[in-house]
Amino acid sequence: MKYVPMVKKLTYVLIFFLFFDQASAQQSSWKEIYPGVWKLTVGNPEAISLLKAAGTEPNVEAIKKLPRTIFPLNQEDISTEVVDGKTYLRFPLDRGEAIYGLGLNFKTHNQRGRILDLHVDHYGGRDDGRTHAPVPFYVSSNGYGVLVDVARYITTYVGTGVRTDTKNPPVLRDRNTDKQWEALPYSDGIEMMASAKGLDIYVFEGPTPLKAVQRFNLFNGGGYLPPKWGLGFTQRVPTLYSDQDILKEVKEFEDHDFPLDFIGVEPGWHSMAYPCTFEWDQGRFPDPKGFIETLDEKGVKANLWMNPYVSPIGSLYPKVKPLSGTHTVWNGIVPDFTLPEVQSIFKEHFNTHHLDIGVSGYKIDEVDGFDRWLWPDVAKFPSGLSGEQMRQIYGLLVQKLTADWFKEKNQRTYGLVRASNAGGSTFPYVIYNDYYSHKDFITALINSGFIGMLWTPEVRSSGNAEDWLRRMQSVCFSPMAMLNAWADGTKPWSFPEVEDQVREVSYLRMQLLPYIYTAFAHYAFEGIPPFRPMQLEEGFYNIEEKEDGKLDATANPYAMAQLKEIKYQYMMGEYLLVAPMFAGETTRKVVLPPGKWYDFYTGELAGEGEVIEIEPGLDKIPLFVKDGGIIPMIPKRRQAPGKEEKLPLEIRHYGGKEATYNLYDDDGTSFDFEQGAHSWTSFKIVKHPKKGLQGTMSKPQKNKPFSYDRKVTWKFMTNSN
Amino acid sequence: MKYVPMVKKLTYVLIFFLFFDQASAQQSSWKEIYPGVWKLTVGNPEAISLLKAAGTEPNVEAIKKLPRTIFPLNQEDISTEVVDGKTYLRFPLDRGEAIYGLGLNFKTHNQRGRILDLHVDHYGGRDDGRTHAPVPFYVSSNGYGVLVDVARYITTYVGTGVRTDTKNPPVLRDRNTDKQWEALPYSDGIEMMASAKGLDIYVFEGPTPLKAVQRFNLFNGGGYLPPKWGLGFTQRVPTLYSDQDILKEVKEFEDHDFPLDFIGVEPGWHSMAYPCTFEWDQGRFPDPKGFIETLDEKGVKANLWMNPYVSPIGSLYPKVKPLSGTHTVWNGIVPDFTLPEVQSIFKEHFNTHHLDIGVSGYKIDEVDGFDRWLWPDVAKFPSGLSGEQMRQIYGLLVQKLTADWFKEKNQRTYGLVRASNAGGSTFPYVIYNDYYSHKDFITALINSGFIGMLWTPEVRSSGNAEDWLRRMQSVCFSPMAMLNAWADGTKPWSFPEVEDQVREVSYLRMQLLPYIYTAFAHYAFEGIPPFRPMQLEEGFYNIEEKEDGKLDATANPYAMAQLKEIKYQYMMGEYLLVAPMFAGETTRKVVLPPGKWYDFYTGELAGEGEVIEIEPGLDKIPLFVKDGGIIPMIPKRRQAPGKEEKLPLEIRHYGGKEATYNLYDDDGTSFDFEQGAHSWTSFKIVKHPKKGLQGTMSKPQKNKPFSYDRKVTWKFMTNSN
Repeated sequence: MKYVPMVKKLTYVLIFFLFFDQASAQQSSWKEIYPGVWKLTVGNPEAISLLKAAGTEPNVEAIKKLPRTIFPLNQEDISTEVVDGKTYLRFPLDRGEAIYGLGLNFKTHNQRGRILDLHVDHYGGRDDGRTHAPVPFYVSSNGYGVLVDVARYITTYVGTGVRTDTKNPPVLRDRNTDKQWEALPYSDGIEMMASAKGLDIYVFEGPTPLKAVQRFNLFNGGGYLPPKWGLGFTQRVPTLYSDQDILKEVKEFEDHDFPLDFIGVEPGWHSMAYPCTFEWDQGRFPDPKGFIETLDEKGVKANLWMNPYVSPIGSLYPKVKPLSGTHTVWNGIVPDFTLPEVQSIFKEHFNTHHLDIGVSGYKIDEVDGFDRWLWPDVAKFPSGLSGEQMRQIYGLLVQKLTADWFKEKNQRTYGLVRASNAGGSTFPYVIYNDYYSHKDFITALINSGFIGMLWTPEVRSSGNAEDWLRRMQSVCFSPMAMLNAWADGTKPWSFPEVEDQVREVSYLRMQLLPYIYTAFAHYAFEGIPPFRPMQLEEGFYNIEEKEDGKLDATANPYAMAQLKEIKYQYMMGEYLLVAPMFAGETTRKVVLPPGKWYDFYTGELAGEGEVIEIEPGLDKIPLFVKDGGIIPMIPKRRQAPGKEEKLPLEIRHYGGKEATYNLYDDDGTSFDFEQGAHSWTSFKIVKHPKKGLQGTMSKPQKNKPFSYDRKVTWKFMTNSN
Repeated sequence: MKYVPMVKKLTYVLIFFLFFDQASAQQSSWKEIYPGVWKLTVGNPEAISLLKAAGTEPNVEAIKKLPRTIFPLNQEDISTEVVDGKTYLRFPLDRGEAIYGLGLNFKTHNQRGRILDLHVDHYGGRDDGRTHAPVPFYVSSNGYGVLVDVARYITTYVGTGVRTDTKNPPVLRDRNTDKQWEALPYSDGIEMMASAKGLDIYVFEGPTPLKAVQRFNLFNGGGYLPPKWGLGFTQRVPTLYSDQDILKEVKEFEDHDFPLDFIGVEPGWHSMAYPCTFEWDQGRFPDPKGFIETLDEKGVKANLWMNPYVSPIGSLYPKVKPLSGTHTVWNGIVPDFTLPEVQSIFKEHFNTHHLDIGVSGYKIDEVDGFDRWLWPDVAKFPSGLSGEQMRQIYGLLVQKLTADWFKEKNQRTYGLVRASNAGGSTFPYVIYNDYYSHKDFITALINSGFIGMLWTPEVRSSGNAEDWLRRMQSVCFSPMAMLNAWADGTKPWSFPEVEDQVREVSYLRMQLLPYIYTAFAHYAFEGIPPFRPMQLEEGFYNIEEKEDGKLDATANPYAMAQLKEIKYQYMMGEYLLVAPMFAGETTRKVVLPPGKWYDFYTGELAGEGEVIEIEPGLDKIPLFVKDGGIIPMIPKRRQAPGKEEKLPLEIRHYGGKEATYNLYDDDGTSFDFEQGAHSWTSFKIVKHPKKGLQGTMSKPQKNKPFSYDRKVTWKFMTNSN
C-alpha cells in the first residue's frame, strides 16, 4: 500500500512546517547589529526584501562615530504577530510625538494621524502611501527611527487606531454636547500590516532625529556622492532630437551664456520606445560614438532616457523573453532583474552600446506605476516573485544594475529614476515625476531628506514668466538642476522677461558648487542629507499649529481639526536656509530656527529664532545663513570644474560668531575618494581683539586632491563686527 | 514518549490539510445552481463571505421566469488560481465590451480601463474601488454578469493588464513616431486578486444586461419593497432637537404645506453619541413612547440615527465588551455582529426601547470608514474574523440585524445606511454619504442600479436658491426623498425664492407614488432596478465617445485619451427618463433611446432616438416618457396613503402607441404581500378606429388589496392621436 510511506513523508514535512510555525510564533529578541542599530526578525522573512534587493552594505565605521544612547522605545510596547500569512506590527507613540518619513509624501511632513498604504506608484495627488519611494522608514521627533524591511505593500496606521487595551486611552466625550469631541481620538501607536509571513524590523537610535536619519542612511551604506558635473545644470532635449539637433542646442547654451553640464537624451535615441530597444536609432543618431565624443569636447555629458520594458523588435528580446514576467508593459516584456542571467544580458548590451562609448548615465522612467501601466499584482515572475514584490523593488533593481556598471568602471554617474525604496540611498539617482505642483515639489524635496532619498523639483514649462523664474530658482537649490524639455522644447531663456534672473540663479548654483559638493560629501560619509528638512533641526522637531475644525454640513461634517505645518523651507548643506517663492505670491513667512540668521545676499540680520515676513522681490530666491555660517564660493562658470583646474575661492562668513568650515574635495569623477583620495580643508574664522574677524585656512595636504587656489578671498558679509 | 501520538494526531491534521489543498489546486467545474446562474468554487472559500454575511436566499421561482441562454463566456478563458494564500482570477473581455458595476462609483459608469481596489470606505472623490458599497459584481454590455463572493478587499484590473500569452495582443507601436500609440494598450481580460485561499464565483446569464442584473438581484433575494410611507418625504432634524422641537417642526411642515412622512431623529436622542448608548436622552426625550405616539397621530414616523459603536456609559457595554473587537471607534467598542449572542443582546435592547414603542427604522451611520475612523486591518474579532473581513461585511451585518427585527414584527421599514455589499439588495436601506457633489450623486444613483443597491442624492444645504431647487428636484426623483438638516436646520422652504417650485416637485413625487411603488414592486418581484441606468436600456449598452488625448507636458504627459460617457440621465420605473439639471446650467443634452419620447409635463414629442438639447427653465426637472408610456398618478397629498383610503387615479398616456400598464398594490406596510396579499391591475390603452385612444381597466380582484377608486381619469397627454 502506497499510503503509509506518503504519510511518513508528509509527517516530516509537517514537523518541518511546525518548526517554522513555532519560530514565527516565538518572536526573536532585539539584537544590536551595529552600534545603535537594532534588529528584530518576525516570523520567516521572505527570500526577497527591500534591503536584499538594494544589496547595500552598511558603512559600519561611520555608524561607530555616531553618539550612543539606549534602545529608544519600551520593548514591551512593540508587538509583532504573524496572523494568517500576514505580519501585524505595533509601535508605541508618545503624546506630542511627530512622525516623519514613511515614503515620499508631497503635501505633508508629519504623518501622525494618517493612514498610508506604502505602495510604489506614481504620486496621485494624495499622501496615501502610493508614491515613487514608499520607504517604510520613519523618524520620530523624539529622536529615533524605525525601518520595516519587506518587499510588500504595507498598510500603515500612524496613530489612528485605538486598542481597547491601550494604556493611554483617549478621553471619552459625548459629541452631542462636548465641543472638545474629536473625530480622531488620541492614539498611542503605529500599526502596520504586510502580506508576508515574516519580515525584519530595524530600530535606529538618535539621540536627535537627524542622528537617527544619519544612522539609517549609513546603515544603507551612506548617501551617494555625485560627480562634480552632476551638480551642474542639465537640459533634457525634445524627444525626437537628432544628434545634430542636440549639438545645436549645446551651442545655443553657449550663445545664451547659460550653464550646461549634461544633456538628457530623451526616448528618440531608441530605434523604438515604449517599449524600448536600447539601440540607437540610425536615422537620428547615425554615429553615436562620434556624437558622444563631440559632446565631450564641449564638456557636456550625455544621459540616456530609458524604461526597462523590452520591445519585441529589439535584439535583447529573444534573450530576455524566457526570463520575463507574465505581463507586458506597453507591449514590452518585463525583465526579471533578480535573475543573474538577465543582469548579464543587460550589462553586456549597455556596456557595449552606451558606457563604452562614453554615455554618462541614465534616466530610468516608468518603474513606478501610474498603476494601470505596469504589471498587475497577479503577475508572476520566473524567479518566483509576485507582482506585488516586484513592484516594490523594481526601481531598486534597475538602479543597482546600472549603478554597478559605472562602479566597475570606477566612474561616477548621476541620473534620474521614477521609483526607489529603502536601501536606495547609495544609488546615483534623483527621483522625479510627472506631477507638476511647485509647492508640492518643495514638500517632496524636504520629505526626501527623511528617508534617504533625493528628489528634484523638475522644471518643464510654465504658464508665465513669474512661475518660470520661481521654478528655476527652486530647481537650482535642489539635488539636480534640471530643465526637462522633452515635450515642448522650453529653454532656460524661453521667457525673455526673466532671462537675466534665470541666468543669475543658475550661475549662483555654479558658484555654490564647493558648498553643495561638500554637503553631498557629508551625505556620503556621515549620512547627513544635503537637502534637509527643518524638522531635523534643533527647535523644529515637532512644530505645528492646530486649528480647530469648524463644522460645515457639506464640506467638513465631522469638524475635523486642521494641522498647519511649517512648510516650504529647508536647509541646503550646513548653513543655508532656502525659502523658495511661488508664482502669485510676493511675500512669505519664514520660520527662523533658534539663533541669529542673516540674509545670504546682503549679510544683514534677518531675525533670531522668530517668524519673519519677507518680500524678496522677483529676482532672488530667499536664502538665509546661520550665525557663524561659512559659505565657500567660486566665480561664475558654465560647467563644473575639471580635474586639472585650480579655482579661486571666496569664503563668505555671516554674523558675528567664530566658526570653522571644512571644505571637501576629490577628483570629482572616480570612486578613488572611497579609498582615501579626498581632502578636507579647514577654514577658521576667529575674532581678533583689534582686527575683528580673521580667516585662516588649514595647511596643504600632500597627495590629496585639492582643486582650489590657496589664495582665498575672505568676505565678512555682516558689518556688525 | 509523548512525541509519537502528537505526530499521529498531526498526521491526521495534515491529511485533512492536504485534502483541502488538493481541492484548491484542482479547480472545481462550473455548476448551474439555478437557471442561468452558474457557480465555480475556487480553492477553499472562507467561513465568511459577502453572501453568507447577508444571509439572503435566492428567489428561485422568479429566476425561473427569466429567459435562458447559454453560459455566456468561454469557460477556458476564465482562469483561477490560489497562489501563496491569495486567489487570482481572470475573466475574458471582448473588443468593445463595456463593464458596469464593481461598486458604487460616483464619477464613471464604464469601468473598463480602470483599476479598483474594492474596499468598504467613505467615497473619497475617486472611482478607485473605495466606496460605500464596493460590490464585486459587474454586468457586461454583452449581457451577462459576474459576482466574486469573498469578504476581502479585491484588487480588480478591468482591462488594464496585458498578458504575454494573450490571444488578442495589442498592436505594437513606436511612441517616437506613431501617433496612434496608446498609453493603455488593448487588454482582453479582467484580472482580480483577493487575499483569501479560495472564494466562489457566480456567472449570471442575460441575454441582455438588464436580465443579467435582474438575475443577480433575484439571486440575492430580489429588491426590497419599501412601505408606502417610505417613499414619501423625510426630514432629518438638527442633531440636538428635543421631542418638542421635533413636534414643532412637524407643525411647520403642515403650516408650510409640505409633504412629510417620516422624521429622522439625529444623534441627540442618545444619552451619548459617538460612541452611542442607544438609550433615550432623558432631558431631550423624557417620554419617548408618548413622543412617538404623538408623531404617529400626525401620520409621521420616526427614524432613529445610530452608529453601532457602544459607549462605555451605556447599558449594553458590559454585555457586549467581551464580544467586541480589539479596537475602539470613537471610544466605543465594536460589537462582533457575527456572534448570535451579540445579536440577541441588541435585539432585546432595540426591541424594548425602540421597536416596541413604534420606532419605524434606523439610519446606520459610519459603518463605511473614512478609513481612519474605523478599526484598522490589524484588528481582530472574537469570532476569528480579521479587520479586513469585518470591514467588508459590517454594513451588511447591521442591516441584516435590524431588518430581521422588523421582519419578525411583520412590519416594513425603510432607512439609511452608509455601507453595504453584495447580497444587500433585500435590505430595507438606501445608501448615502457625506460627499456633496450633485453631479456625482446622480452618477452614484445610476451606478447603484447595476449592483443591486439604492442610493439617495441626499440634500443638506446649498449656496444659493438655484442649487437648492436643483438638488430638491433630483432627490424627489430618487429612492428616498430626504432633506438632512442635522447640522444646519435647513428646511425645504429655506430658500423663499424657490419655495413654490420645491413644494411643486415634492408634490409631484407624491402624485407619482403609485408609479414609484409599482417600480419597487418590479424590483422586489423581478429584480428590475426602480432607478435604472440608461446602459441597461436597449441601444445604450455600450455608448460612449472617445476623444483623443492631447499631449501636454505638465497636465497630460502621456496624451491619455478621454472617454466621454453618457451621464446624468436615468430611468425611473418603466417609462420615465429623468434628466436632472444642475446649478449654473440652463441647457443640457439628453440622449433619447430608440423610439419616440415625449415631454412628461406637456405630452409633446421631444425627439426620437436622438440627442436633444433642452432649456427647461428653473421650475421643472426634465422628464421624458417613452412612446406608449402609462403613468398612474394620484392627487397631491402630504403623506403616503393609509390602508383604508381609496384614492382617485389619473392614468396618463403618452404618444400614440397602444399600451398596457400593470399597477401594483398591497397593504403598504406589512410583508403579507409576500404571501400573495397583493394585486396587479391592468390599464390597457387601445386605439379605437374612430374614437382614438381608449383606456380600460382590468376587473376587480376579490380579497386583494387595492387602494384606488375604480373611477379612473384617463388623460391622453399627446394630442397627435
